[in-house]
Amino acid sequence: MIKIGIVGYGNLGRGVESAISYSQDMEVVGVFTRRAPETVKVHTNVPVFQMDKLNEMKGKIDVLILCGGSANDLPKQTVALARDFNVIDSFDTHAKIPEHFSNVDKASVAGKNISIISVGWDPGLFSLNRLYGQAILPQGHDYTFWGKGVSQGHSDAIRRIEGVKDARQYTIPVEEAMQKVRCGENPELSTRQKHTRECFVVANEGADLKAIEEAIVTMPNYFADYDTTVHFISEEELMRDHQGIPHGGVVLRSGVTGFDNENKHVIEYKLTLDSNPEFTSSVLVAYARAAYRLSKEGQYGCKTVFDIAPAYLHPASAEDLRKNLL
Amino acid sequence: MIKIGIVGYGNLGRGVESAISYSQDMEVVGVFTRRAPETVKVHTNVPVFQMDKLNEMKGKIDVLILCGGSANDLPKQTVALARDFNVIDSFDTHAKIPEHFSNVDKASVAGKNISIISVGWDPGLFSLNRLYGQAILPQGHDYTFWGKGVSQGHSDAIRRIEGVKDARQYTIPVEEAMQKVRCGENPELSTRQKHTRECFVVANEGADLKAIEEAIVTMPNYFADYDTTVHFISEEELMRDHQGIPHGGVVLRSGVTGFDNENKHVIEYKLTLDSNPEFTSSVLVAYARAAYRLSKEGQYGCKTVFDIAPAYLHPASAEDLRKNLL
Repeated sequence: MIKIGIVGYGNLGRGVESAISYSQDMEVVGVFTRRAPETVKVHTNVPVFQMDKLNEMKGKIDVLILCGGSANDLPKQTVALARDFNVIDSFDTHAKIPEHFSNVDKASVAGKNISIISVGWDPGLFSLNRLYGQAILPQGHDYTFWGKGVSQGHSDAIRRIEGVKDARQYTIPVEEAMQKVRCGENPELSTRQKHTRECFVVANEGADLKAIEEAIVTMPNYFADYDTTVHFISEEELMRDHQGIPHGGVVLRSGVTGFDNENKHVIEYKLTLDSNPEFTSSVLVAYARAAYRLSKEGQYGCKTVFDIAPAYLHPASAEDLRKNLL
Repeated sequence: MIKIGIVGYGNLGRGVESAISYSQDMEVVGVFTRRAPETVKVHTNVPVFQMDKLNEMKGKIDVLILCGGSANDLPKQTVALARDFNVIDSFDTHAKIPEHFSNVDKASVAGKNISIISVGWDPGLFSLNRLYGQAILPQGHDYTFWGKGVSQGHSDAIRRIEGVKDARQYTIPVEEAMQKVRCGENPELSTRQKHTRECFVVANEGADLKAIEEAIVTMPNYFADYDTTVHFISEEELMRDHQGIPHGGVVLRSGVTGFDNENKHVIEYKLTLDSNPEFTSSVLVAYARAAYRLSKEGQYGCKTVFDIAPAYLHPASAEDLRKNLL
């Protein structure tokens, strides 16, 4: 059994706990938290420890799955733990990946451990499909569409507006734009042409709804470049209709082959997810298996999904994979 | 520049010649054929050699891309050449992959060369997506649909019927069945419920059309288990409307997560290809890059797409991939 430690117990940590219950070759040896352990209610009978306890666990855990946030937790946590453990995280601040990679790599190399960063679906499975697409159809165009799904960052941005009690924001891909790409038209698409944004807002009593709507649709970076729809709803409606965390999206590679570029090809990779964090956790767990196996081979240093041969992710033997899946 | 040799010059060999013209880090050093070289008309100014010439080319070619057929050519060719060269093939007889792997592996290990077998889209990219899907969503179902596309094997089977001059057969996935899978319904689908078959047949003058149609739709293995439509058309119509070799298909993984299996997820990978052989060739060329790089690292033995980390396929550096695609 591969011994997994879960660091942080929010949506992602819970998702990992659940995903491992589907994996017959893995077990959770503990959840590690900065909160008081007795206040953390886990779903299985996994023990919960104070984060400090990790100091005593070196050698007793095969892979730590880090379930903190990319803004504040992972830049420090992954680096700090990579020296003593094989670690895996879902760091998703695309622009800071090179810096994070470099910091984590140093720690992993020093400790001769494996680390795999930026694992999930974007970055992660979507990145893989961008890479495969470009490698196979070098003459072509990439398109990534997100949604329909909840954007936590955009929901938070709305909640910071005066008079807003709660909010949920959905990113929605423009079907017509995707259809053009699927037909191999290679359209040039502006930000506005690719996605729309739909907001469900609970306002405080007596708040100026017109002002809130104006603040949302004109917000730079978040909404100004999009066609945005704002719906004011009651707190009950928000609780009833918008508690899920669905997401997904599509990566498309549209390219040509032939001596005269005469043949078109479209590769489409599409995810439709009821639960964004649970799916991300499922990807993390599969890559934790890879981290364990690479470590057993004596490999070390920081990796990404680009560096992991697919066979490492699947519990079956190489023979069985060739026989049953190739 | 990575030096590529093309062995066999049919649709696939031509596709490789074309695909390499899109790759700035590769060049074709020769086409090797069993035909008289002067009878082979290549599209670029690549030299054409008799197959025997390969005996003198050891050390002058980085990777041989074998473009013969799976039934008669590759089982012998790949094995024979793997001892002296890094080789890559598109062996696609699924049931015989374990045996082929074992034979090629022995030769590659003896010669300390890299071989990669069964490269293309099925086996190949579709296999990869079956593997990723199972590894990430262990609780789920796999579905593979093929088409709309030309099946060479089924077209040939029709041509062998008495009174048939020429024929083209299209495999067509049943849209309604795919839609059920996309919705996460996990249907049990019979052969008949997954695909239909459409045949365009040119009959000899005075042939018994009723008998031909009956022979097609009742043919065991090929058509009896499918809803099959037969259209009799003129030779001119066949030449005008059915000269392309389109294909494609969809791999779907539908699975659940959560402590009560409460969240559904669907992963869909879809190919829409104007030219089946040119796309397969494009996949071969990307994996030839991987074979070259693995060989430079001192690795040897037989591999499949399952064993190749994605980064090996793309011409960019690991740093650039992390920065631009992750």
